[in-house]
Amino acid sequence: MSTISDLRVSDVRFPTSRELDGSDAMNPDPDYSAAYAELRTSDGDVGYGLVFTIGRGNDVQCAAIEALAGHVVGRDVDELLAHLGDFSRDLVGDSQLRWLGPEKGVMHMAIGALVNAAWDLRARREGRPLWLLLAELSPEQIVDLVDFRYLTDALTRAEALEILRRAEPGKADRIAQLQARGVPAYTTTPGWLGYSDEKLVRLLREARDEGFAMVKLKVGADVEDDARRMRIARETMGEGYPIAMDANQRWDVADAITWLEQLAPYDPAWIEEPTSPDDVLAHASIRAAVAPLRVATGEQMQNRIIAKQLLQAGSIDVLQLDAARVGGVNENIAILLLAAKFDIPVCPHAGGVGLCELVQHYAFFDTAAVAGPRSDRFIEYVHHLHEHFEAPVVIRDGAYQAPTEAGSSASMHAASIRDHLFPEGAVWKDPAHVVVA
Amino acid sequence: MSTISDLRVSDVRFPTSRELDGSDAMNPDPDYSAAYAELRTSDGDVGYGLVFTIGRGNDVQCAAIEALAGHVVGRDVDELLAHLGDFSRDLVGDSQLRWLGPEKGVMHMAIGALVNAAWDLRARREGRPLWLLLAELSPEQIVDLVDFRYLTDALTRAEALEILRRAEPGKADRIAQLQARGVPAYTTTPGWLGYSDEKLVRLLREARDEGFAMVKLKVGADVEDDARRMRIARETMGEGYPIAMDANQRWDVADAITWLEQLAPYDPAWIEEPTSPDDVLAHASIRAAVAPLRVATGEQMQNRIIAKQLLQAGSIDVLQLDAARVGGVNENIAILLLAAKFDIPVCPHAGGVGLCELVQHYAFFDTAAVAGPRSDRFIEYVHHLHEHFEAPVVIRDGAYQAPTEAGSSASMHAASIRDHLFPEGAVWKDPAHVVVA
Repeated sequence: MSTISDLRVSDVRFPTSRELDGSDAMNPDPDYSAAYAELRTSDGDVGYGLVFTIGRGNDVQCAAIEALAGHVVGRDVDELLAHLGDFSRDLVGDSQLRWLGPEKGVMHMAIGALVNAAWDLRARREGRPLWLLLAELSPEQIVDLVDFRYLTDALTRAEALEILRRAEPGKADRIAQLQARGVPAYTTTPGWLGYSDEKLVRLLREARDEGFAMVKLKVGADVEDDARRMRIARETMGEGYPIAMDANQRWDVADAITWLEQLAPYDPAWIEEPTSPDDVLAHASIRAAVAPLRVATGEQMQNRIIAKQLLQAGSIDVLQLDAARVGGVNENIAILLLAAKFDIPVCPHAGGVGLCELVQHYAFFDTAAVAGPRSDRFIEYVHHLHEHFEAPVVIRDGAYQAPTEAGSSASMHAASIRDHLFPEGAVWKDPAHVVVA
Repeated sequence: MSTISDLRVSDVRFPTSRELDGSDAMNPDPDYSAAYAELRTSDGDVGYGLVFTIGRGNDVQCAAIEALAGHVVGRDVDELLAHLGDFSRDLVGDSQLRWLGPEKGVMHMAIGALVNAAWDLRARREGRPLWLLLAELSPEQIVDLVDFRYLTDALTRAEALEILRRAEPGKADRIAQLQARGVPAYTTTPGWLGYSDEKLVRLLREARDEGFAMVKLKVGADVEDDARRMRIARETMGEGYPIAMDANQRWDVADAITWLEQLAPYDPAWIEEPTSPDDVLAHASIRAAVAPLRVATGEQMQNRIIAKQLLQAGSIDVLQLDAARVGGVNENIAILLLAAKFDIPVCPHAGGVGLCELVQHYAFFDTAAVAGPRSDRFIEYVHHLHEHFEAPVVIRDGAYQAPTEAGSSASMHAASIRDHLFPEGAVWKDPAHVVVA
């Protein structure tokens, strides 16, 4: 019998604040980091999961994952991996740990990393990329993975089954198409606030040349500055090219409406995170006021219960699922099903450390087995830190190519982990140190 | 110059699961615990704050408080305590730590404990109980403490000032009345699910004999059992005596409505936490369906943004502010102001470890300086664990008596801390060990 022998957690941090990669109106100097979990088995297999953070507090996030060791170490691997719905429900339902959220923040993200590591382990042992493993499950197997608690006023198990069964015909064809063409990407690489106008223009041109069908600019620090950068972007990319905007929660309702009136002339594709991710009603008010400008949110949407309300209240046009914010694969399946029920596209949030690698699996699974093909589905893409991953994303002609390696793409190179361990790794001891993975 | 010399954090746990004190439909076996913070100054003063948890994960909560040491250690005490609005905003706004919430869960509760410890330190140095210190601030000083970000669609600074100014006349009289008579309490002591019917009846009678004007029963595990216990309670207490019910988030919307139809004949005073604390819209649906039965929630309300929405959506009749769930004194002042704006009574949640001690200050401050006197304001009371506190609550004639000692009543006896340290304290090494404080 193979058992879980160890849950190892590493505090891995990249000094991104030195280059202003990732700077926005709310996050001026992030050090992109990962609380990185390795779930090891007695027969030598490993499953990987991570929580993305932006620096300080990554140690707290690591402690939260470590606190879950008692739920996995010593368990029968086959039994565990055959019942990942129960595993997820048991972790989320631990009555003592639940008090620390419930179902939100550090403890919930820790559960997400562990659930994801278990899915990564299962996908590796089955020799399938995660998205394909999920897509080939039956509708009944998929709904068994979902915790419908607090969802049934919007989505019942029967309705979820109906959505999945509707997607069964043509699934094999869609999988083949995904393997041939991938899922379109948009890129945020040009749009960080810390960049000069010259760098903005250069990166915008590169984005179009690389085939991206959409770009995104950070806004929200200064409205004059935003208007200038949106004007430059519109002039550079031409009429009709989709340019999204991201305010990273900067505004109250009235501020958002006033600010967006001044940016509307540049025909933005959407406004992302105009206000607090907790504020379902404020998003609904803003959306009503700025229509037809579309409203997007989700990267800091704490759980399926907020997702449900954003959909019920008509707060959003685009749902930006994140791979490392909620309670893992199982809760993200619930969110995909909710979005499908309300006919809202899911455009996953990415960037950070490994989020591109992780979220692509959801968009491929969604296309294959849940909502089906949609012309308004894009996966976010940012070009940094991929070199640290063993199976980095592949972008071709502006599209994510279907992952082919077994697992969830979460595993990092051993040398990257070693050199970026905080605070003892070489990068943190010697600021001039450069890692080549 | 006096500086902050140390932030010391202790993992203190009480083995309450051995007696089923605190058992409810979602929390069958809690070990009531505190992540206990001591903020020490170079001249020997100490301020105390805590996060209440129910066992596992208290170590993670301690790590989160420790992660904030860099924000306080070395700072000038007078300067810090003179600008507690800025202190709170700086902690909540730390862009890297903010990612871990934002403004929710483990990291936000850690900020709350540190903010509360700073307030405790200030109140001790000024020789005032916290509630009186707050009540004697001017309206301008009070609004300076509040972070209005994400609130202005419901409550602006000008509206908050107006509420506080309206309460200025008669404040001195109200303070004198509070010092003479206190604030009425209700008790949850009889109502835990783990108790026998005989113990329920005995504790209900004791509650009435002790002068409590209301009691509360836990419900939600089994509807037949709930109906029997509510019938017993109604028969024991007689017609018209207020008996509230608490479901501890057990239900989805439809379940709540069906279940409450069966309990309505026993004339409950309110239903508390019928569903997820994140679900503003579900509370609104349940409230509309079960009216005139009143709906209450708040003990796990993560922040002022959810409070705002519960009020905007007409989701609740009673707001149950908690002292150790949100970002501390400053955010709780925002919540009191929001409730006053919407004319909803604040009946603080208590019990746990030290929550009675902490929350009483908000009810006294609310009565003196914010919403003024209301006949529907009660503070929850549970009788366990007070012996571990240096200035335990005083209940007389079913009312909390005004705290008179300097500070926020958060400090525990040194012996209680020592014996309950987890896992090395005597209580955890020797199950038979009994602490007499």
